[in-house]
Amino acid sequence: MIQQPYSSQLLERAVGEFSKLPGIGRKTALRLVLWMLRQDDTDVELFTEAISRLKQEIKYCHVCHNISDSDTCPICADPRRDASQVCVVENIQDVMAIENTQQFHGLYHVLGGIISPMDGIGPSDIEIESLVSRVAAGGVQEVILALSPTMEGDTTNFYIYRKLAPYDVKVSVIARGISVGNELEYTDEVTLGRSIVNRTLFEGH
Amino acid sequence: MIQQPYSSQLLERAVGEFSKLPGIGRKTALRLVLWMLRQDDTDVELFTEAISRLKQEIKYCHVCHNISDSDTCPICADPRRDASQVCVVENIQDVMAIENTQQFHGLYHVLGGIISPMDGIGPSDIEIESLVSRVAAGGVQEVILALSPTMEGDTTNFYIYRKLAPYDVKVSVIARGISVGNELEYTDEVTLGRSIVNRTLFEGH
Repeated sequence: MIQQPYSSQLLERAVGEFSKLPGIGRKTALRLVLWMLRQDDTDVELFTEAISRLKQEIKYCHVCHNISDSDTCPICADPRRDASQVCVVENIQDVMAIENTQQFHGLYHVLGGIISPMDGIGPSDIEIESLVSRVAAGGVQEVILALSPTMEGDTTNFYIYRKLAPYDVKVSVIARGISVGNELEYTDEVTLGRSIVNRTLFEGH
Repeated sequence: MIQQPYSSQLLERAVGEFSKLPGIGRKTALRLVLWMLRQDDTDVELFTEAISRLKQEIKYCHVCHNISDSDTCPICADPRRDASQVCVVENIQDVMAIENTQQFHGLYHVLGGIISPMDGIGPSDIEIESLVSRVAAGGVQEVILALSPTMEGDTTNFYIYRKLAPYDVKVSVIARGISVGNELEYTDEVTLGRSIVNRTLFEGH
């Protein structure tokens, strides 16, 4: 089908910009733009202003590199958090996912990526040096590696482990096993195998 | 699951604005906002500027009420289009859909809605008076009703038909029948019934 040009260049441009967003095709983009046209001027201003301000004013925590409105993020600034535990994650979404579990009360370290030779991402492209510095500065007793259980995750885990070896710090990795609620028979064999090897004592409480 | 607040109010606000968009939930909104954070400043400016400009500068054609950058839209301004035929549609997307078929070479009239007592939309809320004025001004030989085949569409068709009765103008309605490529057995009975009643002579060319 030949897509006819729109009757408006302004519309064309706005749809073009929206369809650059990941997962948004031209049809969805058009729907969003026409919806936006039906909103009040002030609502559209609020939308564009929220994006502009975020982009211009956002900071990254100088301790953990989490997204923040100030130089130190609310997690690092919270005196109730246990500064002796540092959980290493790939990105900001992972911080949110772990915070949502409400099971971790230490601090984070956001790498901002993962070692991936295929994508040209090496150790110096992500926040590993700053993690080593944090540990070297003292006060950290345990580094918990919470990267995805992929080849890149394993590579990064191993690299960090080696880098931290000279320091008196415990390095742990989040447990891998069958997902809670998942059917055993549909679990892939690598995961199932690991969950057998890494079995834990049954605690009947 | 309790959703923990983000570590940034700026992020919170931007995600909130994005998740107001139709069909965009908080999870998708967060993904879009974080993607936007990774783009260049200039790209984000292009995005917000395209939306602001569209909202501030967009016009509606004074003839057909189609979206336009100028007072008269490119379709109404095109001397090659047949001004004796006016196709009545509900909204701008319908103009685009018909233009994409490349089967219609007349002009349009965008109602900007459809008569729907359930939604409190009456004849005076949509561009019916201006359609009657266009016809009254002369030059229009045929008004083609291209509204959706729903109860509201039928009501609006009938209302327009009555309003145009005093004028010497042909009023036609787009053909309803089974969709090209659709299986007969899966076609609903109303459509199938109409397609039998409104059968056309088979032309074997």
